[in-house]
Amino acid sequence: MKNLNPLEIIKSELNIIENTLKVYLDSQHSFINQVSEYIIFSGGKRIRPLLMILSAKLFLNNTINKESLESLYRTSILFEYLHAATLLHDDVVDDAQFRRGRRAARNLWGNQATILVGDYLYAKALRIASLLENPKVMNVITQTTLLMSEGEVLQLLNIDNHNLTESEYEEVIFRKTAVLISACCEVGAILGRAKPNECLLLKNFGKYLGLAFQIVDDLLDYLSEETGKDLGKDFKEGKVTLPVIYALKSAEKEEKNKLLSLLKAPNPTQEDFETAKKIIEKNKGFVKSKEKAQHYITLAKKCLKELPNNLYKNLLLFISDYLLERKK
Amino acid sequence: MKNLNPLEIIKSELNIIENTLKVYLDSQHSFINQVSEYIIFSGGKRIRPLLMILSAKLFLNNTINKESLESLYRTSILFEYLHAATLLHDDVVDDAQFRRGRRAARNLWGNQATILVGDYLYAKALRIASLLENPKVMNVITQTTLLMSEGEVLQLLNIDNHNLTESEYEEVIFRKTAVLISACCEVGAILGRAKPNECLLLKNFGKYLGLAFQIVDDLLDYLSEETGKDLGKDFKEGKVTLPVIYALKSAEKEEKNKLLSLLKAPNPTQEDFETAKKIIEKNKGFVKSKEKAQHYITLAKKCLKELPNNLYKNLLLFISDYLLERKK
Repeated sequence: MKNLNPLEIIKSELNIIENTLKVYLDSQHSFINQVSEYIIFSGGKRIRPLLMILSAKLFLNNTINKESLESLYRTSILFEYLHAATLLHDDVVDDAQFRRGRRAARNLWGNQATILVGDYLYAKALRIASLLENPKVMNVITQTTLLMSEGEVLQLLNIDNHNLTESEYEEVIFRKTAVLISACCEVGAILGRAKPNECLLLKNFGKYLGLAFQIVDDLLDYLSEETGKDLGKDFKEGKVTLPVIYALKSAEKEEKNKLLSLLKAPNPTQEDFETAKKIIEKNKGFVKSKEKAQHYITLAKKCLKELPNNLYKNLLLFISDYLLERKK
Repeated sequence: MKNLNPLEIIKSELNIIENTLKVYLDSQHSFINQVSEYIIFSGGKRIRPLLMILSAKLFLNNTINKESLESLYRTSILFEYLHAATLLHDDVVDDAQFRRGRRAARNLWGNQATILVGDYLYAKALRIASLLENPKVMNVITQTTLLMSEGEVLQLLNIDNHNLTESEYEEVIFRKTAVLISACCEVGAILGRAKPNECLLLKNFGKYLGLAFQIVDDLLDYLSEETGKDLGKDFKEGKVTLPVIYALKSAEKEEKNKLLSLLKAPNPTQEDFETAKKIIEKNKGFVKSKEKAQHYITLAKKCLKELPNNLYKNLLLFISDYLLERKK
């Protein structure tokens, strides 16, 4: 195992996760499976189950029997279900037409079925968690879903808030992304029978990683080569993200007003998008956001410092760098 | 306590439940509390928390300290939250304008907020459950929510099915109502430290009670004095319930077609409603449904037979009769 390069090991973990996802979509009702499969197998990165597995193995370090290993993978997919459930409800709430380059589920089966299958995936995730009969895990997961669901409401209330501050933005991305990634790592540590202070380190590792992950996501909405051909989704929706917050902070009055008016435009053009990008660029919105993401990755890595050096720690460090440098 | 009549004791239990509901709606975000309060305090009967409390006390029989008693009431309200969460999502799915005689939440705050506050109440319910750190309780609750959420999808798929059979109808009302009421009673027994076979008896008691409860609800949609002034909601939506199933089974061809066409009418009138009622009445749809509900109440009461005779058993028997005879 030690001679393989990190990418190969991660690939093999992702393969097992992918197969586990296929095995456990087992509603007796084919329609439910159909909609669930559509959202689950739509090109997700599986970063959440992967982080749970690696966090557990960091402590277990391969001292685990076959049965426990199976239970570990089964548990890991609940985080993908939770994530998929929020995507389904988000798409209904946002009236989304597309998701990951193809038609949104609601666009195929309507809002009604999409809401209810979202509820199903959520229930399924909690069901998988309960099979562990581990109150510590349940504690983390129910606290996480509560924070996330409150966050969704707050995001809705903030939808037209163009005065979003940096700390309000951080609260939004904490609840939207970081809290779930944090839970993956913490639950991994709990299942790896880590000590309480080690579980806390993994919880914080996941939190910082998740914050960086979402900032990079928000950067890619403007800078990804893929979205280069098209307008960024956030920009189109007039959503205020970190690059915009930084730009609005340093820009002079005229540029500030221009950027705001572009964000508020009901049907922005490709040219509007390019103009907005130039204003953000000029006012260091992208550079400063990248620095902030870098800052969180540094904090994340620091959490792992005192933990034993092994293959899985290296993989978690590798993923931290990858999340920062990814181009899509 | 023993000299009080059953209604007085139940009233005092309901008072404590009502206060507990008020105390625990504690999101830091006032908007979430506002929408939650609107649906929670909209005239629900609190039958679910009440059944949980009485099922626990049946076994504890007042041998419980203050702290455990508080935990018991706190736990009981999670069933009201779960119920409220499904009502919010149901109203969005059904495009409902009204709920319990006043404007539906979605009619006040829109579908987006209603979906997300539904998610919040669901998360809150699971959060309360996890505080018990009791895997048996978590097992019951996650199994229940999974069955319910699948049931919601199935109901949506069956929305225009006018050939619904009696056994399909039973599956629908089992998942829609009985499984949650069953969970209330089973969790009550678990928290009352009942033996496994006693927990099973309470689970079955709740199941039969829930089936009867929903059949009576479906009967009242046609026969309640309150809806007398107005069309029944099920009839207006063309929903096939037990009285209709029985009537369609015995009616001759002409009457059968008439009843079906009335149910399928896009905008049925008061006269249509009266005609439908006459056809159902003539074909014994109401009488047979009442008998079926009576049958389930008999089965429910039988589950309690071997259990110790005490005040709380009497109250559960009293409620069983009440649910059958209620007029609204």
